[in-house]
Amino acid sequence: MDKILCGVDIGGTKCSVALVDTTGKIIDKIFTCAHADATEEGLVNLVTGHIKEICQRNDLQESDLQGIGIGCAGHIRFRDGVIITTSNLKGFKNYPLRDAVQSSFNIPVILDNDANAQAFGEFKFGAGKGFNDMVFLTISTGIGAGIIINNKLYRGATGTAGEFGHTIVDPNSELTCTCGNKGCLMACACGMALPYLFKQKIRMGKKSKLDLPHNFNMAKMSGQLLKKGLDMDDPVSKEIILDSGYYVGLGIYNIFQALNPPLIVLGGGLTNWGDFYLNKIKSTFYGFARDMIFDPIEIVISDIGDDAGVIGAAALTLD
Amino acid sequence: MDKILCGVDIGGTKCSVALVDTTGKIIDKIFTCAHADATEEGLVNLVTGHIKEICQRNDLQESDLQGIGIGCAGHIRFRDGVIITTSNLKGFKNYPLRDAVQSSFNIPVILDNDANAQAFGEFKFGAGKGFNDMVFLTISTGIGAGIIINNKLYRGATGTAGEFGHTIVDPNSELTCTCGNKGCLMACACGMALPYLFKQKIRMGKKSKLDLPHNFNMAKMSGQLLKKGLDMDDPVSKEIILDSGYYVGLGIYNIFQALNPPLIVLGGGLTNWGDFYLNKIKSTFYGFARDMIFDPIEIVISDIGDDAGVIGAAALTLD
Repeated sequence: MDKILCGVDIGGTKCSVALVDTTGKIIDKIFTCAHADATEEGLVNLVTGHIKEICQRNDLQESDLQGIGIGCAGHIRFRDGVIITTSNLKGFKNYPLRDAVQSSFNIPVILDNDANAQAFGEFKFGAGKGFNDMVFLTISTGIGAGIIINNKLYRGATGTAGEFGHTIVDPNSELTCTCGNKGCLMACACGMALPYLFKQKIRMGKKSKLDLPHNFNMAKMSGQLLKKGLDMDDPVSKEIILDSGYYVGLGIYNIFQALNPPLIVLGGGLTNWGDFYLNKIKSTFYGFARDMIFDPIEIVISDIGDDAGVIGAAALTLD
Repeated sequence: MDKILCGVDIGGTKCSVALVDTTGKIIDKIFTCAHADATEEGLVNLVTGHIKEICQRNDLQESDLQGIGIGCAGHIRFRDGVIITTSNLKGFKNYPLRDAVQSSFNIPVILDNDANAQAFGEFKFGAGKGFNDMVFLTISTGIGAGIIINNKLYRGATGTAGEFGHTIVDPNSELTCTCGNKGCLMACACGMALPYLFKQKIRMGKKSKLDLPHNFNMAKMSGQLLKKGLDMDDPVSKEIILDSGYYVGLGIYNIFQALNPPLIVLGGGLTNWGDFYLNKIKSTFYGFARDMIFDPIEIVISDIGDDAGVIGAAALTLD
């Protein structure tokens, strides 16, 4: 019988543990928000406790599991299983999370960046099925990515390969990323750019149809709000979505030139902007790539959806 | 006894055939400039003739050779051994060069992009020895690159992976690449940008110490001339070299974020600008990368030098 995969997704607001079958279907899931204020030791206890609990209530032994895959946002040194830094949790500087969890189990524990995990999930169970190589790009508050080469995650020296979000695409841009640089893809094209872009359009005298309260905290300008704007044909919301789509299209063009992949899969919250957004991404990409495309390249939206994080984490046990 | 490697480097001005030993040392070499005006069939005859001639005069049978590696500038579809387009030669649109040469030999013939060949040569015999992963970037009239992942060339779907020269690094730049896009790394940072950059500085009222004839054809502004300018402390030449170094540094930073390689090797004619140039490249890179470097990354100049093209082509037979 195929073994069961166990995935752990450590996000900023939610921490999920799930059992997943070898087709990528969730068998059972536990999630908590209690981890956000936990100490390092507290988080490890919480995670190992939930793994043991979910096994117990599904009548599974540890030996029924293929392994435990953990996906966590931030910089992960893969070979050591160490969180170098993460903005999702307090502390956890150079924290050996993999070994801390491993000490309670005899099956392999794998720790990787959440975008790598999602990429591998998409490759195994989603839009990447049947491909040997692909790039996955997730666009939400930030931009993450994972690279599959020859059926395996390509992680690079530290494990931080695929940080296309930090590649600089417009050095004269005023938009600043959390990394400190201006004009990287993440600064220009994802959730963190939206407050700046909205303020900028308003400053330029453009009128939004979004009925925002007088004292609206612009830092809360979000993808969801702009989706509302898009649906009501708000010109400001639409312009911002097109600006963001332009930079993602440019970013994808750069990925195409760098890696010549047959498939690019887009995930993350901002893909909910739908075809209006995707069309701008694609028209920008094809506008740059023109006659330099010699073999088919597919640009598609993620297949897996909401549970991509924990399913991807579980998929890591198959890498 | 180790087999002998045979390399063929098809450049714009020179076409070289060489025998190379398994340490990367040239045993014998023939070169010609007659290929530039040759037809497709003429080039094939010329190359196969030179291969047979160089074997004969070194008392080698075909079976003494590991194989024949051919490096050629342009877009190469690797799996088919086809030149899709090349700006080095007239014609050769979708030309199956590999099979045309193969028809005269019973040992494997491999056709690849010249930058891939140089990258693999550098990996096998030069600065990349001992590494499993690296990126090679060659900066001359254009910018080419090759990616080594897990001891092998990574070529992507068509074989055009590593075209970092065409990644867009400054979408608002006025500099136009031969590909038609503005602001790609190749447009901003290599030989083809020098005439524009020089004219621009002069137009801004800057005075060059380079003693150019009154009717100097600015299209001939070259890396060698700017090297002369650098040596005589010409402020215009130095500014252009620094501008170019900035963009290469930015390009390397983007490669670092994309692939997290432990080693980046720089080759090509513009590296003759020396430390003044390399220091700007490195300071730009480290200025962007700052606290995001978690494991050592080396940025070094190519070890192989002048014969990199033909030695790299020979190295392809070891991939």
